[in-house]
Amino acid sequence: MEHTKQELARQTAQAAQDHVDGERLRLAIAELASFGGRSDGGVSRETLTDTDLKARRHLVDRARSMGCVVEIDDCANLFFRRAGQSDLPSVLTGSHADTQPVGGKLDGAYGVLAGLEVIQALNDAAVPTLRSVEVVAWTNEEGSRFGPGCMGSSAFVEPARLAGYRAVVDGNQVAFGEALDRALEAMPDVPRRALRQPLAGFVELHIEQGPVLEHAGVPLGVVTGIQSVRWYRVQVTGVAAHAGTTPMEVRADAMAASVEVAHCLYAEAAKLAASQLRLTLGRWVVSPNSINTIPGAVEFTIDVRCVDEQVLAGFDRTLRDIIGTNAGRGRMALECLFERPPTRFAQEMLTLVEEACTRASHLACRPPPIRVTSGAFHDAMYLAEHCPTAMIFVPSQGGLSHNAAEETAHEDLLLGAQALAYAVTRMACA
Amino acid sequence: MEHTKQELARQTAQAAQDHVDGERLRLAIAELASFGGRSDGGVSRETLTDTDLKARRHLVDRARSMGCVVEIDDCANLFFRRAGQSDLPSVLTGSHADTQPVGGKLDGAYGVLAGLEVIQALNDAAVPTLRSVEVVAWTNEEGSRFGPGCMGSSAFVEPARLAGYRAVVDGNQVAFGEALDRALEAMPDVPRRALRQPLAGFVELHIEQGPVLEHAGVPLGVVTGIQSVRWYRVQVTGVAAHAGTTPMEVRADAMAASVEVAHCLYAEAAKLAASQLRLTLGRWVVSPNSINTIPGAVEFTIDVRCVDEQVLAGFDRTLRDIIGTNAGRGRMALECLFERPPTRFAQEMLTLVEEACTRASHLACRPPPIRVTSGAFHDAMYLAEHCPTAMIFVPSQGGLSHNAAEETAHEDLLLGAQALAYAVTRMACA
Repeated sequence: MEHTKQELARQTAQAAQDHVDGERLRLAIAELASFGGRSDGGVSRETLTDTDLKARRHLVDRARSMGCVVEIDDCANLFFRRAGQSDLPSVLTGSHADTQPVGGKLDGAYGVLAGLEVIQALNDAAVPTLRSVEVVAWTNEEGSRFGPGCMGSSAFVEPARLAGYRAVVDGNQVAFGEALDRALEAMPDVPRRALRQPLAGFVELHIEQGPVLEHAGVPLGVVTGIQSVRWYRVQVTGVAAHAGTTPMEVRADAMAASVEVAHCLYAEAAKLAASQLRLTLGRWVVSPNSINTIPGAVEFTIDVRCVDEQVLAGFDRTLRDIIGTNAGRGRMALECLFERPPTRFAQEMLTLVEEACTRASHLACRPPPIRVTSGAFHDAMYLAEHCPTAMIFVPSQGGLSHNAAEETAHEDLLLGAQALAYAVTRMACA
Repeated sequence: MEHTKQELARQTAQAAQDHVDGERLRLAIAELASFGGRSDGGVSRETLTDTDLKARRHLVDRARSMGCVVEIDDCANLFFRRAGQSDLPSVLTGSHADTQPVGGKLDGAYGVLAGLEVIQALNDAAVPTLRSVEVVAWTNEEGSRFGPGCMGSSAFVEPARLAGYRAVVDGNQVAFGEALDRALEAMPDVPRRALRQPLAGFVELHIEQGPVLEHAGVPLGVVTGIQSVRWYRVQVTGVAAHAGTTPMEVRADAMAASVEVAHCLYAEAAKLAASQLRLTLGRWVVSPNSINTIPGAVEFTIDVRCVDEQVLAGFDRTLRDIIGTNAGRGRMALECLFERPPTRFAQEMLTLVEEACTRASHLACRPPPIRVTSGAFHDAMYLAEHCPTAMIFVPSQGGLSHNAAEETAHEDLLLGAQALAYAVTRMACA
């Protein structure tokens, strides 16, 4: 009996997968990209702008034309539901439809449109599912207009966050709450529903935004989790003085001290290469920043990420040691600005997604999927706190993202949607 | 006969030195500081501004009241002459009266006013000199309004430079030539004279602008020369990419490459500590300068100085080796922006200045002078190309200069003027 049910779920999943239409998906991506489309191929569609509201209306119309029920929640997250045979918790897929100030046509949009393509494929295959299949377009994943990012998904999981988000203002002093109310008012025909709905699971399909799959020559990645990250600021205070008249032995050169610290940090990162620790010293402010004046103050940031939180904790200790050792070279202050533990997706979800990716790759005579970790944040990071969650990656050409030149081969986009259809349908049948 | 002449010159020099009046000098400094004086004790008197023109008029009136002949040349350098018994080339002292946008009351002004105090002392002692004693106020030593600095002294030595200087514009698009003509027109009562006059010698008294004398606890420094300097710009080009998604092994991190180069340069400077090489990496521009983006481009400057040009040439070779070794870590370009060989003052001038400083210190029961090199440029650097030249330094409290807080103890300012009176008078009697 259990065996028969599993076999039936597999057959339904295969039917859905086999009805995914690559050309229809390609056209849907091009159509959505026209909202905020740029002549260089990029897309400018920051969250809750007029352009974003038009794109949202376009998605609502498209989903309704496929027979979906459309709902919206208090954070303007949009849900498109293909009803199941039961009222058991739904299976959710999707991503976000907003972009960076200058982004590409795939980051986020691909996951939403591949989700709708899965519903279309289920319709075409004319197969019912036990659970409803829902596609979501999360609000403000990018965080470029209103920080932080992932507002929609994090408020869905923890509705108490919304009140704080509403007060955040953009560069024109428009509050997120105000922009949100405008978006909700623009959809009087869309029924409201509560945040934090029970879910059977969430699967997010996304471009990798890095070079790992492309380097491996593999079209599909099973994402095992999202790296742990810590952000720090180091402030080094020395004494600005004349570059010509001040002997080396009496200097308090904030840049010389900073370079020593940075050198030690890069060396430590090299030692931890096997743990795939990633270290970036991205922002530097040097004062007075004059060719013939000894730097009196330097501030620099540390972005360090690792899938293994123990390695990151060890790096934190080493960092504090290095700052302590060099403190005599100038007054040094270390401040942790942000930290986020790693996200590990549930084992049974990895198994399911791997099966889905393997089947899609195999049918296309392509190499089997590999397991990868995500270096960037995604809405799935928050959903993993709420329900069994997984992600599928497709390659990004040249590893480029947040860039008008963002691109993925059509055949890879199709494979990703096929794997998604299989995984979502299997879950919806159980 | 020769012995008698020397003994007479020494006695005249001693008489001049003994008639230097510290209180009169202190008041003269305070009076000149009122032109552009700030409530924080600093002075804002950039070259050829209305404030500077008023200060120049004040100096002309003061010199005339002491019986001096006043002249001006095509670069608006002002000369105040106490006539000698012969028309042999004059002995010149002085410095500059312009300041940085926010400078102190001593940088430059001290040398000019101490020169006038020497003339006053000669008058009070009622001693004649064989050669005329002249005090100069050079135009635009600072170079902050019109670059480069030392325009007046360098045009005096090499008049052909003036045509190029005249075309230089300030931040308000006013040409140096225009400002110069205004200054000359403001002095219709002052006779014009040619640039590049023959001179028996030049002695410049100046604050040290560094901490060496203060650290040594010595009030007078015999300046043996001015360091050699080279300025470079290093441009490192990598690839900007996402700090989270880009594995370390595929990065081209322009900051990581720059830190390695900087680390090697500081290490090389430490090896050359015995040669008193001074290294400053003062100006940094990091792009895109974002906490979670790998730096795609970094530009930094190198200011390196040494009294020994061979050491500097060796550093240049090492620098090129280091850039070459690290070139694989990002595209690196090295450009030399400026270089100036060292200035070495003539041996007989050092002997004379040392004798002058020793006598002044001895009479005041203070430690004898030490020999120091100048890390900063001064008008004396150019004069050394033209005639026997020397400099005397007095301490700067805390090594501070180009700063409203610039300060030197009154007793040190007096000792400097006494040493100057001795040295100038000895030369004027020979």
